Amino acid sequence: MDPLRLSAEPITAAAFAAYGEVIETGGQQHVLINEGKCKRFTDLATVDVVDGRAGLSLFQSDLRPLPYLCTLLERHPLGSQCFVPMSEATWLIIVAPDEDGAPGAISAFVARPGLAVNIARNTWHGVLAPVIGSGLFAVIDRIGNGANLEEHPLARPVLIDVPKAG
Amino acid sequence: MDPLRLSAEPITAAAFAAYGEVIETGGQQHVLINEGKCKRFTDLATVDVVDGRAGLSLFQSDLRPLPYLCTLLERHPLGSQCFVPMSEATWLIIVAPDEDGAPGAISAFVARPGLAVNIARNTWHGVLAPVIGSGLFAVIDRIGNGANLEEHPLARPVLIDVPKAG
Repeated sequence: MDPLRLSAEPITAAAFAAYGEVIETGGQQHVLINEGKCKRFTDLATVDVVDGRAGLSLFQSDLRPLPYLCTLLERHPLGSQCFVPMSEATWLIIVAPDEDGAPGAISAFVARPGLAVNIARNTWHGVLAPVIGSGLFAVIDRIGNGANLEEHPLARPVLIDVPKAG
Repeated sequence: MDPLRLSAEPITAAAFAAYGEVIETGGQQHVLINEGKCKRFTDLATVDVVDGRAGLSLFQSDLRPLPYLCTLLERHPLGSQCFVPMSEATWLIIVAPDEDGAPGAISAFVARPGLAVNIARNTWHGVLAPVIGSGLFAVIDRIGNGANLEEHPLARPVLIDVPKAG
């Protein structure tokens, strides 16, 4: 079967609200610290962990060529997963609502440099797919035993591209 | 009084062990995920929070010119503070051991791109001082009420420079 073609849209907090959080500095309340030389935007992610604790890990991913073929979604029933790029990265975030235990209609987003993204617990999502940058991400997610990974191969893969800016 | 002059040394886990953790991918055990396209280095930071919870914040700092004049150290009695650069950053980490409630001899480190640094609870340290990069950092630290900041102006400021690489 031909893959479904999708164009990734720029991620925004509003567009992504059903799937998690976009963590960014723009427009948020902040306090000035360090004699006015630093803005602190406090407590931006809902770290949601069941039966375990949150920890910090590093993911070193290969960059993915565009268009990107997504063949599988996964979800984590026991915890949210927050991705913090450690370079000025452009990366894809592929998500879907749940429909009776399987992914529904897929949406594709693209994150530009300066954003972190927290994928809510139990949200269907594609694997980390950086397009530009070092491929290095810090990840805040659940540390603990138990079954925290559910995978769903897509009956019809999705081919995702990113429109040129401007 | 003339400032004390210090040359920042490259940060390493061993050299920094008395003050906290260097979070990096090199040489650590990892698992391959995402069909072999991503290395996961799990649970690298000791998030140490008293009477509160850990949260994710963003710090948008000005870049600091070199040499950097450090006039004050601070510490957080109730929690560790982990700095994750969101660009390929070079930044200074200035620390000191505690001596009877005040900072002892100051050490200066420089972090190159690809490293995060977790400053241990109650460790004397300088404020965030990025030299190269976007100045944007994700910070995992304590969210909660109570007195979690102690500041100590330095009787003799410290002027820190970074040796040229190579």
